[in-house]
Amino acid sequence: MTLLAQTCTSMTAVDSAVAAATQRLLDGKTKPRRSLGRLEDLACRVAAIRGTTTPELPVKAIIVMGADHGVAEEGVSAYPQAVTRQMLLNFATGGAAINVLARHAGAQVVVVDMGVREPLPAGLSIRAQRIGAATANFTHGAAMSRAQATEAVETGIQLAQELVAGGVTLLGTGEMGIANTTAASAIAAAFTGAAVEAVTGRGTGIDDSGWRRKIDVVRRALSVNHPDPADPLDVLAKVGGFEIGGLAGVVLGGASRKVPVVVDGFIASVAALLAVRLAPAAADYLVAAHQSVEVGHRLVLEALGLRPLLDLELRLGEGTGAALAMSLVDAALRVLHEMATFEGAGVSDSGA
Amino acid sequence: MTLLAQTCTSMTAVDSAVAAATQRLLDGKTKPRRSLGRLEDLACRVAAIRGTTTPELPVKAIIVMGADHGVAEEGVSAYPQAVTRQMLLNFATGGAAINVLARHAGAQVVVVDMGVREPLPAGLSIRAQRIGAATANFTHGAAMSRAQATEAVETGIQLAQELVAGGVTLLGTGEMGIANTTAASAIAAAFTGAAVEAVTGRGTGIDDSGWRRKIDVVRRALSVNHPDPADPLDVLAKVGGFEIGGLAGVVLGGASRKVPVVVDGFIASVAALLAVRLAPAAADYLVAAHQSVEVGHRLVLEALGLRPLLDLELRLGEGTGAALAMSLVDAALRVLHEMATFEGAGVSDSGA
Repeated sequence: MTLLAQTCTSMTAVDSAVAAATQRLLDGKTKPRRSLGRLEDLACRVAAIRGTTTPELPVKAIIVMGADHGVAEEGVSAYPQAVTRQMLLNFATGGAAINVLARHAGAQVVVVDMGVREPLPAGLSIRAQRIGAATANFTHGAAMSRAQATEAVETGIQLAQELVAGGVTLLGTGEMGIANTTAASAIAAAFTGAAVEAVTGRGTGIDDSGWRRKIDVVRRALSVNHPDPADPLDVLAKVGGFEIGGLAGVVLGGASRKVPVVVDGFIASVAALLAVRLAPAAADYLVAAHQSVEVGHRLVLEALGLRPLLDLELRLGEGTGAALAMSLVDAALRVLHEMATFEGAGVSDSGA
Repeated sequence: MTLLAQTCTSMTAVDSAVAAATQRLLDGKTKPRRSLGRLEDLACRVAAIRGTTTPELPVKAIIVMGADHGVAEEGVSAYPQAVTRQMLLNFATGGAAINVLARHAGAQVVVVDMGVREPLPAGLSIRAQRIGAATANFTHGAAMSRAQATEAVETGIQLAQELVAGGVTLLGTGEMGIANTTAASAIAAAFTGAAVEAVTGRGTGIDDSGWRRKIDVVRRALSVNHPDPADPLDVLAKVGGFEIGGLAGVVLGGASRKVPVVVDGFIASVAALLAVRLAPAAADYLVAAHQSVEVGHRLVLEALGLRPLLDLELRLGEGTGAALAMSLVDAALRVLHEMATFEGAGVSDSGA
């Protein structure tokens, strides 16, 4: 059996009995029942995933995967393709937004080259896992072969499992790839059946004519390739990207090891949807970090059955929203660990 | 001139030129313009308040004021009045939610007894600033005298100014007081003119009959006392609480020293509205932490012209939402301090 098939079939459900027991623990803390709202839900979710009512404060890693996209030549981004590579170098030297916000959250950043056009120099803290040198322009045919699609997903599975084996207990997903909102929109349309304009936004900031061009590009991609929504690898191969496949693998790898995965914005959520189409049980291992400005994000989160924790009008990607949400995971678990009980503190409990 | 009058008249506007200069700095960072959304707004706001484009990472204090309310005898809370005092003891020993979340945010908690019915034992880390032993039941007459109202506000001003003199550069407001949502609803109705049922919620969790009783209590309080919305001290004296007056003072004291004040939920926001009615310039020094479940909170935030940062269905008070939002202030300022520029990192800037 392949790693992908084995990972999907061996995945187990999260432990809902642990979630209920965790809620009972929270109900004994010195506060009105449920008065910490979604922080309590978050504690219960993480507990259910980890299989214990008192999960340790997590060791955190944000996996940021970068790759180039042949479709960039259609003029769908406000930035030149060279920026993908430049930003990976920026990640490696610690100057990007994700580096700052990951430091703030106490998370390590794992930068992965999944297929930037021009290889990055050796000796940097960037893992080379190149599936190719950019995808093909999917307005003319498939973005990648089916074998490459499988390889991309399995790369993510292996990386996540390796990090977990090294002690990581909370994963986050982030990405960088000029034109990758175009791929994400095409995947979102293929999986959800939504109208192309409902899942196609302005990415890093294209103008009106660029946006109309982008919608046309996504439409052509779908009509040229006919991705089969019942076959997730077909969708990835035809209109996806190497980093999107890789991040789907990260979700599967984390879920297979009972580690929650904090999903960043639109592109990372599309990767999570791909993962859930490959293995439906993966859905319960996800935490949606934030509601992105990108127009298709809401539909993708709905398809995943997730409510985002934050709504800060972010539209940067890189895992920046995931980093901010990881701090809320810490807060939720600290409530579970550190708060006094009604009995212990001598506080009257109304039961309200 | 009294401390209150002097504080209100000497308050200056925040520096909007600094906000604009801060946005230009952020626009030079390696990310599409404005792609960090409300985190960028937050950085600009704090910069404008502090009067510098590069404010230091803040030294944080959350002031949690507790007091008892005579109106508790009308049966408007799910908890007995003794819980106010019990929870102040819990704050002093570090077991409450605010202690946990303040530790998470790196904030000190300053616990203040503004007038709990039974004085707290000495030797604990609770500041005794008792304006009285609980307010009077305001369904029969004023909650406190006008002199007490002034004293409550001035106590908050002095405390905030003292903390700032000691190095604090970011204040948060929190409260504890059984029945204080009833007082907050009455103040909100008086200031905004909203219908009583639109600003009266379930507090810590009363049932339907308790909620109807609470609405009736607020209506009686307003018709017995006729608080004058043009005279904020009159509103505080007639239907307020000692801790609400104190927190209004904290806002004024912080604003008078150019320190941002992160406002917690419904009751703390009502206190902030009282402060802004006393000194309109105070509004620009506020950061709204979160949207509470408490029904009147939205109207009060609208009256303040504030958009909350978080929406996590919290309804606990104590400053818990403020603590979580303080972490976002740190994140926003770290972006300003630590991110590379397009030029410095050799990344192509599209200007998008």
